[in-house]
Amino acid sequence: MSKQYKYSLTEKDIPEAWYNINPDMPVNPAETAWKAVLHPGTKEPATPEFLSVLFPMRFIGEAVSMDRWIEIPEEVREVYKLWRPTPLFRAHRLEKALDTPAHIYYKYEGVSPVGSHKPNTAVPQAFYAKEEGCAGFTTETGAGQWGSAMSMACNFFDLDCHVYMVKVSYQQKPYRRILMENFGASVTPSPSNKTEYGRKLLAQDPDNPGSLGIAISEAVEAAVASQGKYKYSLGSVLGPVLTHQTVIGQEALKQMEMAGEYPDVVIACAGGGSNFAGLAFPFLHQNFTNGKNTRIVAVEPKACPTLTRGKYAFDYGDTAQMAPVVKMYTLGHDFVPPTIHAGGLRYHGMAPHVSALLDHGDIEAVAIDQVDTFEGAAIFSRAEGILPAPESSHAVRAAINEAMKCKEEGTKRVIVFNLSGHGFFDLTSYDAYMKGGLERYEYPVEKIEESLSHLPEISL
Amino acid sequence: MSKQYKYSLTEKDIPEAWYNINPDMPVNPAETAWKAVLHPGTKEPATPEFLSVLFPMRFIGEAVSMDRWIEIPEEVREVYKLWRPTPLFRAHRLEKALDTPAHIYYKYEGVSPVGSHKPNTAVPQAFYAKEEGCAGFTTETGAGQWGSAMSMACNFFDLDCHVYMVKVSYQQKPYRRILMENFGASVTPSPSNKTEYGRKLLAQDPDNPGSLGIAISEAVEAAVASQGKYKYSLGSVLGPVLTHQTVIGQEALKQMEMAGEYPDVVIACAGGGSNFAGLAFPFLHQNFTNGKNTRIVAVEPKACPTLTRGKYAFDYGDTAQMAPVVKMYTLGHDFVPPTIHAGGLRYHGMAPHVSALLDHGDIEAVAIDQVDTFEGAAIFSRAEGILPAPESSHAVRAAINEAMKCKEEGTKRVIVFNLSGHGFFDLTSYDAYMKGGLERYEYPVEKIEESLSHLPEISL
Repeated sequence: MSKQYKYSLTEKDIPEAWYNINPDMPVNPAETAWKAVLHPGTKEPATPEFLSVLFPMRFIGEAVSMDRWIEIPEEVREVYKLWRPTPLFRAHRLEKALDTPAHIYYKYEGVSPVGSHKPNTAVPQAFYAKEEGCAGFTTETGAGQWGSAMSMACNFFDLDCHVYMVKVSYQQKPYRRILMENFGASVTPSPSNKTEYGRKLLAQDPDNPGSLGIAISEAVEAAVASQGKYKYSLGSVLGPVLTHQTVIGQEALKQMEMAGEYPDVVIACAGGGSNFAGLAFPFLHQNFTNGKNTRIVAVEPKACPTLTRGKYAFDYGDTAQMAPVVKMYTLGHDFVPPTIHAGGLRYHGMAPHVSALLDHGDIEAVAIDQVDTFEGAAIFSRAEGILPAPESSHAVRAAINEAMKCKEEGTKRVIVFNLSGHGFFDLTSYDAYMKGGLERYEYPVEKIEESLSHLPEISL
Repeated sequence: MSKQYKYSLTEKDIPEAWYNINPDMPVNPAETAWKAVLHPGTKEPATPEFLSVLFPMRFIGEAVSMDRWIEIPEEVREVYKLWRPTPLFRAHRLEKALDTPAHIYYKYEGVSPVGSHKPNTAVPQAFYAKEEGCAGFTTETGAGQWGSAMSMACNFFDLDCHVYMVKVSYQQKPYRRILMENFGASVTPSPSNKTEYGRKLLAQDPDNPGSLGIAISEAVEAAVASQGKYKYSLGSVLGPVLTHQTVIGQEALKQMEMAGEYPDVVIACAGGGSNFAGLAFPFLHQNFTNGKNTRIVAVEPKACPTLTRGKYAFDYGDTAQMAPVVKMYTLGHDFVPPTIHAGGLRYHGMAPHVSALLDHGDIEAVAIDQVDTFEGAAIFSRAEGILPAPESSHAVRAAINEAMKCKEEGTKRVIVFNLSGHGFFDLTSYDAYMKGGLERYEYPVEKIEESLSHLPEISL
């Protein structure tokens, strides 16, 4: 009867280095590392001088580094101790509810003070800017998960934090805005009058509800205009961000060792790719170098099917074409997912590393409808108690599907997925789901073709 | 530089027994144990037959038990494993922010799936009802902390859960209502048309905003009317509830041993007394039996000053005079704290055990204004990241005050407080605080005298 549910590590087990996948990439590093990051104007490889307007130098150094292990600064590890190591759970009760022979484990990043994995990279980014003597950061946020992580990190290092928040979320979801303000951040609904691009959009349509791509454009413009006072911070997509998140997978490797099992399948949701990379890359490293053969699955919404319906091509990181151009799976930089989509993961692109790995066949991708996603979240929460964030619920649902396949086949497989955050700020979406107010929705192929026709023409 | 922040236990360290303070009470047990629980009609000691209409028999057995240790059923420990043991943190960053020689530790119960200590007793109560073959529970909730714990516990044991939620919270704070519904509970705004008492109140005033005392009355009436199908569940006040919460203090004792220190002061907020008892009773046990001399401090809001301004007397547990009568510190059963009070802890009475211990001088009580409370919460969250629940913030503020006294005196003291829950569902109160919209408020003494004049006349 006595089963182990939780595999806990102590502070001593917080990794001392991040895993940098650059040297292990099975494809030309030029497609993923900094050489493949283009200036949005010239479409030529971006110089460190241009990039350093936006990012701290140490961050840029990590992007081009070919060192497999990058030491985590002691100042960052000290802050990690506020919530790391995070627990890994065996989902005994979910297995029983599904009546599956599969063994299901989940790594739970929702124990961070802002409820998601995002602080894993917000903290080092803030520390690097502080080291360089910057005054603070500009950044963007959708519903506020990234913005609240960055606000907390800036607060810890005594930096200003200026967040451009997608206007429709600012108006409809005040909770994370308040959390950011509690950490001393200024939060501006985007599009705003604070930037040239924002003013241009508001002149066209004063009721523009905003989008993640627009908010990125405003934050980038504001950082550039500050002439070095503020750096710009991105919560996903870029190489160093993925690297910082690998504390998740490294801890999970140790915890699976404690559990005495090794995963057959590793699953995480993918919006820009950071929580996915965080769990998956250390297991991929085992695939690449240690003879392991774990299936690695990225899960995305059918309403924003970047990996499953997008094109692997060079595209702008933002709507206004001010952020660097990178090669990635993309739905086109002016793609905006429909407002009826409640599940997050709304970015038009995907981390170049994750994109290249998919293109090369090292990982898989699946897309899940939002109604199925919330159904999975409800099944999970009634079994395990924890209410998953809508984003994380894509991974939950994919893990459930995998476990049900095990049941059909009568096979035991070991499944590990990333529960990247809790859903306490997303209860109105749960309400809509329970009331039958969420529609099944698949983004129409014709519309994707339309937005893909606006890609920049680049041949390297 | 390398300091330890988190003291983690493993599942094996989840206590195997609850600590029952009955045999160690330094006062006549008749004043606290079941003999002092009176029938609301006859004012005679309540019979087990009467009580068993409301509570599971095993729960009643615990209330009168003189066994110091009550074994935790394996079925309950299995559910505890979903979040227990909870972490104990050393607040190094808060100490630094306050520049105090004090050592500050906090036990964090917000890691439970519903974000507070409440499931520690919800789970055994649900298990006992299931054992007896009941169909489920009726219960009440204010803002929803207790209701969501009971909804989760009933879900785990496949029981119905009918929650009467104070109407003004039902309307203004939909998040916890949605969380309860996600666990399959039915949530009714109180006063409602479902009970005789509710109908009576609505006939007098259709816009009655409700109160905790009224919601208790409705839940009790509904349980009685079900003739045994449903039991009634209370989330605080009663002896067994305090007993169930002692897992908190027992774990904290072990964790302080890991830290190599012993507390000079133990602090917890007190509404009905359960999270306070949960942390404090195991330390009181050390005071009583092991020669320790820790100060034990209960913290309450100045807007509901039960321990500091109330009377130690027999009073009804609810507004409609249907719940049992107990001897406790009370502000009068028709006391309703003002709506401007944002800090929770709104119950008119206090656990009989806690009341007797205060009366006997074994513990202390302080009251804190809500503006000071939220100021303490802001200081804490900026230092430690975690956003405390308004209730828990009373303990936070009292710990800060104690640490500042240490600084003035130049003395090191070891302080342990209970961070009983997180504040993710209470961000609108933080918003009001930041905007200067919270008023300082002390409940007027004259009005307390008025509500105390309605106490039942009882002499035993």
